[in-house]
Amino acid sequence: MSDSQAGHFLVQRHTHDGMRRVTDTVTREEPLEIRIQYSFKDSRRTESVAVTMRTPGAERELAVGFLFTEGVISRPQDILDVRMLGSGESNEVLIEIHPERDVESWRLRRATLLSSACGICGKTTIESIPEVPSAGGDGLQIPAALIYDLPRLLTERQTAFGQSGGLHAAGLMTPDGELSAIFEDVGRHNALDKLIGAELLKGGLPLTGKVLIMSSRSSFELVQKSLAAGSNALITIGAPSTLAIEFARSRGLTLIGFIRDDHFNVYSGEWRLVV
Amino acid sequence: MSDSQAGHFLVQRHTHDGMRRVTDTVTREEPLEIRIQYSFKDSRRTESVAVTMRTPGAERELAVGFLFTEGVISRPQDILDVRMLGSGESNEVLIEIHPERDVESWRLRRATLLSSACGICGKTTIESIPEVPSAGGDGLQIPAALIYDLPRLLTERQTAFGQSGGLHAAGLMTPDGELSAIFEDVGRHNALDKLIGAELLKGGLPLTGKVLIMSSRSSFELVQKSLAAGSNALITIGAPSTLAIEFARSRGLTLIGFIRDDHFNVYSGEWRLVV
Repeated sequence: MSDSQAGHFLVQRHTHDGMRRVTDTVTREEPLEIRIQYSFKDSRRTESVAVTMRTPGAERELAVGFLFTEGVISRPQDILDVRMLGSGESNEVLIEIHPERDVESWRLRRATLLSSACGICGKTTIESIPEVPSAGGDGLQIPAALIYDLPRLLTERQTAFGQSGGLHAAGLMTPDGELSAIFEDVGRHNALDKLIGAELLKGGLPLTGKVLIMSSRSSFELVQKSLAAGSNALITIGAPSTLAIEFARSRGLTLIGFIRDDHFNVYSGEWRLVV
Repeated sequence: MSDSQAGHFLVQRHTHDGMRRVTDTVTREEPLEIRIQYSFKDSRRTESVAVTMRTPGAERELAVGFLFTEGVISRPQDILDVRMLGSGESNEVLIEIHPERDVESWRLRRATLLSSACGICGKTTIESIPEVPSAGGDGLQIPAALIYDLPRLLTERQTAFGQSGGLHAAGLMTPDGELSAIFEDVGRHNALDKLIGAELLKGGLPLTGKVLIMSSRSSFELVQKSLAAGSNALITIGAPSTLAIEFARSRGLTLIGFIRDDHFNVYSGEWRLVV
């Protein structure tokens, strides 16, 4: 009784008339273990790098997007193969990484980050976060009138269950308002990783000149992923956090949010908005 | 121009009449690095165990709750001292752990979990997640009529900014409907860790016979934390995920959610509800 995105449960519903059994449709949450196989000196090693709680669907894209935004890989050629392990509906994905990609440096860097002082603690060090490029000086221009249509555009492209509000959506838009891709997940960071992974797999990175759209609020993490993918603009239906604004401003990313029927806010990079 | 929970930014607001500058109030998100000092053989070691993105406030409680739900500590006596590092508004907290608490075993267990196959991937292994107790067979009884009041009760106790919807809230309720504690955060798992940490520090764990209330949806992680704290019931205003329901059912936790004006759903442990 489950499809990819939703599960169905017999539950007890309480109303003012008492209790009765109903079938409830619920967002699916499942773990996904991301494993990599990589070369070190003359041998191949396999290692688990993350377990993320996610909504099933686009597992390969999610794993590839995660590895890219974490800096494990940087281009399609770094990937030899991506496959689900086991049979049937699997919760494990293996990415075989090209022998020439230096994964060991990333592992050491991560170990250092985890064991030494926090690299992003304290406002003065926000500017020093490694490996996140600034948004480019491209000619991206976003018509203001388009923004008001985004909630409707995004919802129209979501699945039936996604439209019910059970899932976050991440979309990719051209400046003329065409949504070229959309991915959904119970976790907003997963939805964005799925989109970025799909673009990497088809050679679509960097996302220069395209706009990332999200149904959720924005956070530090979503701004970091948007910049890593080379996007120049992140537009969210919801509001940003303080750190999302500060980070976007420090890197020249256009950050727009809080879209209502009659207004929206431009938090950073307003020069890309055509009024 | 910032208080603990919210920051204030000059932003551009677009309306159908054009752009104008407004001051916007935004949820604060800041990193918090959690460091521990513990004994191994005859020496004391200091180590960073996590960086979490959180809303400032109740840092000590957040750190202690995190260490408890992760299994690093299990009782108030395991803590020698909890203090913020540096001066002014700090993003680093240090917990000194009692020399007799065996932290090394936890470190090895975590290293194994991170480097071996996922312990929770695949439905058949949900039952085998270590160190999470089943909900006890206590006599907790929750009056159904109380549930409809929870959204209002929770909102009334939130801060002014929290009431605007910018923060998740976690509350602790007695069966007669008294909210004895409330904590807020941009991350729902942080709000719950703050509450659990505060209870641990004042000797209030396990939470047997009390009910955890959250303004958010429920997930696997929130169910896991509720069980770790010894609670028998988790009630959320929003809906649960599939894994939250399955995990709650496997451990006998009462899980209630999707509270509306005229109905709510009981997903697990309905025997504790008094209709």
